[in-house]
Amino acid sequence: MSHIELISVPGIPLITSGDDLPQVIGDALERSALILQENDVLVVTSKIVSKAEGRWIDLSSVVPDERALMVAGQCNKDPRLVSVILSESSGISRTGHDVLIVKHRLGFVCANAGVDHSNTRGEGEWLLLLPENPDTSASRIRDRLAGRFGVCIAVVISDSHGRPFRLGTVGVAIGSAGLPALWDLRGQPDLFGRRLQHTEVGFADELAAAAGLVSGQASEGMPVVIIRGISYPIDKQSTAADLNRPRDKDLYC
Amino acid sequence: MSHIELISVPGIPLITSGDDLPQVIGDALERSALILQENDVLVVTSKIVSKAEGRWIDLSSVVPDERALMVAGQCNKDPRLVSVILSESSGISRTGHDVLIVKHRLGFVCANAGVDHSNTRGEGEWLLLLPENPDTSASRIRDRLAGRFGVCIAVVISDSHGRPFRLGTVGVAIGSAGLPALWDLRGQPDLFGRRLQHTEVGFADELAAAAGLVSGQASEGMPVVIIRGISYPIDKQSTAADLNRPRDKDLYC
Repeated sequence: MSHIELISVPGIPLITSGDDLPQVIGDALERSALILQENDVLVVTSKIVSKAEGRWIDLSSVVPDERALMVAGQCNKDPRLVSVILSESSGISRTGHDVLIVKHRLGFVCANAGVDHSNTRGEGEWLLLLPENPDTSASRIRDRLAGRFGVCIAVVISDSHGRPFRLGTVGVAIGSAGLPALWDLRGQPDLFGRRLQHTEVGFADELAAAAGLVSGQASEGMPVVIIRGISYPIDKQSTAADLNRPRDKDLYC
Repeated sequence: MSHIELISVPGIPLITSGDDLPQVIGDALERSALILQENDVLVVTSKIVSKAEGRWIDLSSVVPDERALMVAGQCNKDPRLVSVILSESSGISRTGHDVLIVKHRLGFVCANAGVDHSNTRGEGEWLLLLPENPDTSASRIRDRLAGRFGVCIAVVISDSHGRPFRLGTVGVAIGSAGLPALWDLRGQPDLFGRRLQHTEVGFADELAAAAGLVSGQASEGMPVVIIRGISYPIDKQSTAADLNRPRDKDLYC
């Protein structure tokens, strides 16, 4: 674990609905002569996964219901946008001026249910939802690329989230496959041979944050990053859902 | 921003009170023939900064006061430990079973005020506090290494924090010098030439999280990581304190 590389995959085209993302990523890897290596982690931004899945909503088609109108009043947002956010959420965490923080149907807490309003799509106003099931998407990308290139890799689907207490967004994992998203190091000895007491590392989140340094929060130009040189145990059971803190262990819900 | 390297600096010895950390790191760099390059970011774990500063407290010397006894009762912790945690804090955020989350005197919110009980020091039970002023420590390391090697670098002092909503610790920046800890990308155009609306990136936190992949949360063996290949603006004003979310912008305080 002494030398890690973060390599952006060049030449990923703009993704549109129906694109076969594992194929597109694999083709870009081949064109760039980047050879996937055993244990590489591929971090893919959720945005291109969403676009491939066609997760667009035409804002003008949305008719907000009573609840959306009420919540929109609390947070000074477009009721149609609020309606879409609530449809992606299992509950509201906090509202504030221009702020709506929800528990996403996928289990994590984030602003606006991750609904992206910053880019539009052709004419009109379109919203982009998070992928339908990012853990499944990660698994599919992993299996397809492993099959195509004959190597065992892991995949993380990343998103940028704000946080309580701290300003600024950071990359977090909303999907993963092939690695321990939550890595339990408890019981491992420290330098002095004593057992560590409570070290569960948000491994997939650290990978997503690291990839954010390459892909940049601002850019759609580098949506796939290879992280190379990390030793980690292959884990076919773990998914990014493991990172969701259960309600009874959360003092801030 | 297409290729970033994370390189651990080998041969950092066990740090003890009074060690001149910039000297020790510089010597390790020379011994390993690692040449610092312009714009390298050095991520240093807070633990070795604390040790160099001798931030040890002998638990057996602590006499808890009334408040510490009361809080200790709320969270089922050793009242002496609680006394030390409170002495490093400006307020309590949450208490729970075996959990004490505070606002650290440095402004960030974290469990146990970052007081480390996992390693001991010789005989008896010792606690290690966070550095006195990690932003100042970062600045000092930056200036000394820049002077010694004749390159402009940035420095981040990292710690591992748990988080609301999400399980697992991740690296965060508690000190920084020479870079925009909070990087404001608002107003920059996206791929389509539209202005991004609200992208303030927790840049120093992403660097700390990335370095955590190399240094490992479990290890004291790799406490200094070089992050190479990132383009960022030199910023002599910004410090990690910029990442602390003001109370009036925090819905979870």
